[in-house]
Amino acid sequence: MSSLQTAINARTSSNLLQLASAQSRSQVLKRIKIVLEKHKEQIFEANLEDIAYAQKEVEAGRLSQSLFKRLDIKGENEAKFETMLKGIDEIDMLEDPIGRISMHRELDEGLVLKRVSCPVGVLLVIFEARPEVVVNIACLSIKSANAAILKGGKEASKTNRVLADLIKQAILSVLDENSSSNNDCPEFPINAIQLVDTRDEIHELLQLEKYIDLAIPRGSNALVKYVQNNTRIPVLGHADGLCSIYIDQNCDINKAAKIVVDAKTDYPAACNSVETLLVHADSLSECFPAVAKALIDSKVVLHLDSKSKSALLDSGIDFNTNASYIVDAVPEDYNTEFLSLELAVKVVSNIEEAITHINTHGSKHTDCIITSVESNGEYFMNKVDAAGVYMNASTRFADGFRYGFGAEVGVSTNKTHARGPVGLEGLTIYKYKLYGIGQAASEYGPGKKQYTHRDF
Amino acid sequence: MSSLQTAINARTSSNLLQLASAQSRSQVLKRIKIVLEKHKEQIFEANLEDIAYAQKEVEAGRLSQSLFKRLDIKGENEAKFETMLKGIDEIDMLEDPIGRISMHRELDEGLVLKRVSCPVGVLLVIFEARPEVVVNIACLSIKSANAAILKGGKEASKTNRVLADLIKQAILSVLDENSSSNNDCPEFPINAIQLVDTRDEIHELLQLEKYIDLAIPRGSNALVKYVQNNTRIPVLGHADGLCSIYIDQNCDINKAAKIVVDAKTDYPAACNSVETLLVHADSLSECFPAVAKALIDSKVVLHLDSKSKSALLDSGIDFNTNASYIVDAVPEDYNTEFLSLELAVKVVSNIEEAITHINTHGSKHTDCIITSVESNGEYFMNKVDAAGVYMNASTRFADGFRYGFGAEVGVSTNKTHARGPVGLEGLTIYKYKLYGIGQAASEYGPGKKQYTHRDF
Repeated sequence: MSSLQTAINARTSSNLLQLASAQSRSQVLKRIKIVLEKHKEQIFEANLEDIAYAQKEVEAGRLSQSLFKRLDIKGENEAKFETMLKGIDEIDMLEDPIGRISMHRELDEGLVLKRVSCPVGVLLVIFEARPEVVVNIACLSIKSANAAILKGGKEASKTNRVLADLIKQAILSVLDENSSSNNDCPEFPINAIQLVDTRDEIHELLQLEKYIDLAIPRGSNALVKYVQNNTRIPVLGHADGLCSIYIDQNCDINKAAKIVVDAKTDYPAACNSVETLLVHADSLSECFPAVAKALIDSKVVLHLDSKSKSALLDSGIDFNTNASYIVDAVPEDYNTEFLSLELAVKVVSNIEEAITHINTHGSKHTDCIITSVESNGEYFMNKVDAAGVYMNASTRFADGFRYGFGAEVGVSTNKTHARGPVGLEGLTIYKYKLYGIGQAASEYGPGKKQYTHRDF
Repeated sequence: MSSLQTAINARTSSNLLQLASAQSRSQVLKRIKIVLEKHKEQIFEANLEDIAYAQKEVEAGRLSQSLFKRLDIKGENEAKFETMLKGIDEIDMLEDPIGRISMHRELDEGLVLKRVSCPVGVLLVIFEARPEVVVNIACLSIKSANAAILKGGKEASKTNRVLADLIKQAILSVLDENSSSNNDCPEFPINAIQLVDTRDEIHELLQLEKYIDLAIPRGSNALVKYVQNNTRIPVLGHADGLCSIYIDQNCDINKAAKIVVDAKTDYPAACNSVETLLVHADSLSECFPAVAKALIDSKVVLHLDSKSKSALLDSGIDFNTNASYIVDAVPEDYNTEFLSLELAVKVVSNIEEAITHINTHGSKHTDCIITSVESNGEYFMNKVDAAGVYMNASTRFADGFRYGFGAEVGVSTNKTHARGPVGLEGLTIYKYKLYGIGQAASEYGPGKKQYTHRDF
C-alpha cells in the first residue's frame, strides 16, 4: 500500500472514530487482550526469529546491546508479556478522555457555547526496538479515539507485524459480532491502527501533514531529530534528556547523596537520568565529597571542573585508587547526555548561576534542586524553564506511570500542547460547539443585543 | 541590534518574567495606558505620516484599500484610540492565567506533584496594517508573563515605532518608581516587548527556535503560509478560513436565510465568513430559493452547481435581472476563500456527503449546520473536524470577544495546543513541580514502596 493510501485510510478511520462510543472503544481493547493472549505462541515465535536475527546483527556490530535487550517480548516466565496485557486493562480502566466539557457558557439566551475534548485525529508514532510499544500505543490511540500509524524498528519487524495483525483481527471480530447482533459501534474502523514497515514510508508520511495531525517519535536522539527536521507535522517528544541537579548552599547531605545516586544509577540510559551536577561553592567542603564518594562507590565516572576536583582532593579521597572515576571536565561535557555512568560536575557561586546554567545548557526536561531552604526551592522551580522542576526528589520520577497517568506516549520537552510525561490528555484537543436558534452576529453590538457571557 | 541579540534579550526577559507577580504585571499595564493617553498627539502625528505615505502607495497600486483602511489608529472623535485604551483595562481585569493549578496529587507521603500554568516563554508575533495590534499583543503578553517580539507591517511602521517606544517608556517609569520605593518587581524586564522593523529580521528570527517558543502570524494567507513554511518554531494561527454552512433536509427557512446572509455579508473579508453553502437536495425547492433570494438582495454573487441553478430557475427567480449574481460554479470554487460577496453553492444528497465535503475542502475553522433535527445537529458537530462546529448560528460568532475571552491573539486551526479563538490561555503552558523530602525512584516498585496517587 502506498504511504498516501495509508494516510488516507488513517484519516477516514479518524473520522469514524469521532463517533466511536466509550463502550465500543472499551470493547475493542478487551478483545485485543483476549486475541493476544490466545495467540501468544505465535507472537513468541515471531519474537524468537527477530531475536535470532538481531543476535547476528549485534555480533556484526550493527545493533547496540541496549536495543537488543529491549527486543524480548516474553520475559522470564512470560512476565513481560503479562505486564503488557495488564497494561491493556489499565488503559481500559482510565477515565474516558473524550467528551469532557472544559467550558460551558451562555453567550446569550438560546446561544450556548461548549468546549468539548475530542481526539487529535491521526497520530504517526515512530519507535525503536521494544515491540510491546505496538500494543501500548495502539491501546492508547483506541482509548483516545485517535487513528494511529505505527512504525517500529526493523529489528523487531516480525513481532511488530504479528502484533499489528492480531490487533486488526481483534477489531474485525468485534465488528463481525456487532454486525450480527445489531450492537453498538457497527462502524469501528478496521484501519484504526496501521503498521508500516519501511523507513522510506516514514519519510513519505512525514510530508503528509494534510492527513496526519501529530508525530510522536520515541527513541534515540537521532531518530527524534530526524523527525523534527523533516516534517511540518507538530512533533511531540524530546530529542534530549539533559537533566541537572543543583546542590544548594544548605541541604541534607544524606538526602543529597541518595537523590543524586538514584538519579544517575537507577537507569542511566533513561532520559530522566541526571547528566550534570551543579554544586554551590559553600557545599564543596562537606556535602559534595560525600555525594562524590557515593557516586564513585556506584561506579560513576565524574567529569570534574577544577574547583570540584580541588575540593575532592582536599577531602582526602584517594585519587590513585579511584583514578578511573575521576576525569577533568571539558566544556562539551555540560552539553552531553551521557546515558551511562558518567556525570559532569560544575561548581557555581550562587543559585542564580545554577539557574542560568540549566536554562542555557539543559534540555527543559527535568531539573532538581536539593535544598533545605524552601524559598530557594520555590525560586529555582519558578525560574528554571523545564517540564519538570523538582525539590529534593530524584529526576527519575519524571514518568507517566509514576505521575499516576497509567500510561504514557512519551515525555515532551515542547513548550506548547503537552509538556512532561504525556498521557491520554496529550492525545486530545477540543472543539467549540455552539448551539443557536437562528442568531446572526450582526444582531449584537453597541445599541443592539448584548452578550450575557454567563458560565453554567 | 542583530536578530540574534533581539532573541537573546527576549529569552532573558522571559526568564525574569517567570517571577513577575500579578501585581507588577498589572502595574505595568495600567502605566502603559496612562503613557499612551498622555502622548496621544505624538501617536496621531506618526499615524498621519503613515497614512500619507500609504495613500501614495494605494494610488501607485502597491497597497490594497483594505489594508489602508485599517491603518488609522484615531478613528472618528478618537473612538478607535479610546477602544484601544479600554482594551488595556479589559485585559488587566481578566483573571491571572499564570500559577493556576490543574493537578495536585500526592504520589506518596511527602512526595507531592503540582501541575502549574506558566507562560509559554518568548512569542514572535507578526502582523499587518492595524497598529493597535502592537498595544493589544503587548498587553496580552505582559498579562501572561511572556516576552514578545513584534513585527508590524511597514505601512504602519512610524505608528508602531512610537507605540513600542511608549510601552518601553511605561515599563521604565514603573522600574524607576519601584527602585526608589523598594516596591514590588524591581526586575520587570525592559525588553519584555521588542519591536523589529524589517522583513529580513523576520526570516532570521524564524530560525532561532532555541530562543523563540511560539510564532503567531496574523494577516494574509500568504503571510501565514510564509511563516509556516520557514520555521521549526510552533506556529499558532490559520492560513485559511474556509467556512461552510450546510442546510439540512428540515429547517426553518427564515432562520436559514438570516444566518447565511449574516455569515456572508456581516464582514466578508473576515476569516469566519462563510464561503461554501451546501444544500440538502430536499431543501432545494423551498428553502434554498428563499436563501438565494436573500443573498442576491444583499448583492452576493452565487457560484451555483447545476442542481442548485436548476432549482433557482424552477423557483421563478428572474435570471435576466439578476444575471450578475448568478455564475456557474467551477471545482476550484469549493476550495476558495473568496473574502468578498461571493459564495460557492453545492447540492448534497445527504448529511454524510456534506460532512465529507467539509472535512475534505474546509480549513477546520468554523462550520455550521442549519437544521430543525437536533440529532442531525449533534451528528454533524461530532463528525465535522473543525475548531468550531455550530448548529443554527452564524459562523461569524467564531471570535474571542464573542466567546467572552476579553481579548484574542488570533484564531487557530491547529489540531494541537490551542484551537479556535485563542485568548490568554493559549499563551500559557504548564510545568510539573514535584516537592520531595529526599525520595529516590528506586525505592518504589514491586515488593518495595508503593505510590499512593491520591488527588488533593
